This record gives sequence, structure tokens and C-alpha cells, in this order.
Amino acid sequence: MLGRTYAGQDCSAARALEIVGERWSLLILRDAIFGHLTRFTELQRSLGVAPNILTSRLERFVEAGLMTQDGREYHLTTMGRELAPAIVALTQWGDRWVETPDGPPIRYAHDGCGGTLEHTLVCDSCGKAAPPDDIAVEPLREPRVA
Amino acid sequence: MLGRTYAGQDCSAARALEIVGERWSLLILRDAIFGHLTRFTELQRSLGVAPNILTSRLERFVEAGLMTQDGREYHLTTMGRELAPAIVALTQWGDRWVETPDGPPIRYAHDGCGGTLEHTLVCDSCGKAAPPDDIAVEPLREPRVA
Repeated sequence: MLGRTYAGQDCSAARALEIVGERWSLLILRDAIFGHLTRFTELQRSLGVAPNILTSRLERFVEAGLMTQDGREYHLTTMGRELAPAIVALTQWGDRWVETPDGPPIRYAHDGCGGTLEHTLVCDSCGKAAPPDDIAVEPLREPRVA
Repeated sequence: MLGRTYAGQDCSAARALEIVGERWSLLILRDAIFGHLTRFTELQRSLGVAPNILTSRLERFVEAGLMTQDGREYHLTTMGRELAPAIVALTQWGDRWVETPDGPPIRYAHDGCGGTLEHTLVCDSCGKAAPPDDIAVEPLREPRVA
């Protein structure tokens, strides 16, 4: 999946971006995950994207395993749905740091309860939320090239 | 910042990807945020990236406000550091869903305690963690085009 120039770079985040790291891709996934849109025509109308671009992106998602196709309908797989936290994290960062003339256009809410969702890094050992400065990176194996 | 084709698409996640949605960019930020690398030469050695590419990416980060430059040193701003959760979320998704022949290369650990950090969406009202299916999107204002 990774290009030759990235051969030495063994990073799962980079690999994830290989699949979703393009603006239309992200917008399509956002509408599919949070807007529950499944039909080609719904997605096309919602995004105002050219049909040939939408077709190629959806084909790519089906190939990568993010969606399954049933005629003109596209259904998210678990793999696709589980991108939700990454999309929320990117959105909240964008809301906070990238100027939007009218303020954030949407809010991610807890369905049912109505509260606002905040992304948090929770420690599976002590159960506390970790601020960015308290994160360490541990290599899990030897790098491929010494 | 957004190209003309995206003018109708008012999405903070898409805007965030405008800045970080490219593989080298993400790898550089990962090494800066979690590896605490600041020197051009350290980043260059760590990533094996061509100097001209590294220069152009770092210039872009300084322009966008993610880093400040001091000679050959590049220091993250709060804006840059706050990308940490989005990078962890993308990494965890990649670890889980994108095949890596030798398993995940790194682990994000809670500094001091040593536990593994999990990216979680927590509701600010009820305090519970929300799985992707329990997330709703609420428009905060009228769309620009009716």
C-alpha cells in the first residue's frame, strides 16, 4: 500500500491516511458515518461532488474494505465505521485551530443524551485521561533497517 | 485555504487534512510530537526523507502556525501539539485494520504509569464513552446554500 519512498516508514497513521487522507474521501465518509447516507445519489446531492469523482472514491472504499456495494447503495463495514473517532478528532482540531468565518458548522453529540463528545486519550492501566505531554512512544519491535 | 471545488463543503475535518493530510507531514509531526525531535538533521535522519521535502513541509507547518522556527530548530506550538489525539486515533485505526506484516511498530504509552493509551470519545454530559453508533451530528447553523 505504501509507496516506495515510504518503505522505511512503518507508521500505521500514515497507512490510514493512504486510504482516507484526501479531502473528498473524508467528506464522503463523514456523510456515510454520521449522516447515514448510503445511496450514490444522496451522497452526490449532499456533497455537490462530480459523479466521476464520487464513483472513484466509493470504488476505492469498497476495494479497501471500508464499504460494501449493493447496486447503487454503499454500506459501511465495521472497518469503515471505526474511522469515526479519527474523523471527530480531526474535526475538533479543525474547529479549534483553523479559522471558519461563521464558527464550527456542526457538533458531534452523544445520541440520546445530547452531550457533546470530547476525544480523550484514556490509559488502560490507571484509567486517567492523558494530556499530550504525558504520552510516550514505545517501539514494539526492532526497526527493519538498523 | 480550501480549493474552489470544496467551497460548498464546510467541514473542519477537511480543513485539518488540508494541513496534515499528507504522509510525510504526518510522519514529521509524529516524530516532533511524540519523539520530541526539533532539529532539522534529527528529523531528516529519523525519517530518511529528502532534505528538500523536509524543508518544504517544515516551512508549511511554520506558515500554518503548527511550529515556530529558530535557525535549524523547529518547535511545536500548542496548535501543533494538539494534533496528538488525531494522530493517535489514525494510528489505532491503522493498527487494527491495515495489514502490517510484523504487527504494530509502536505503542502509545502513558508516561510514568506505562499503560496503553486508547483514543476514546467521552460525553461531557453523562461522562460515558460513546461507540461510533452512538454519535449524532447536529448542525450548528443554517447551511450557506439552501
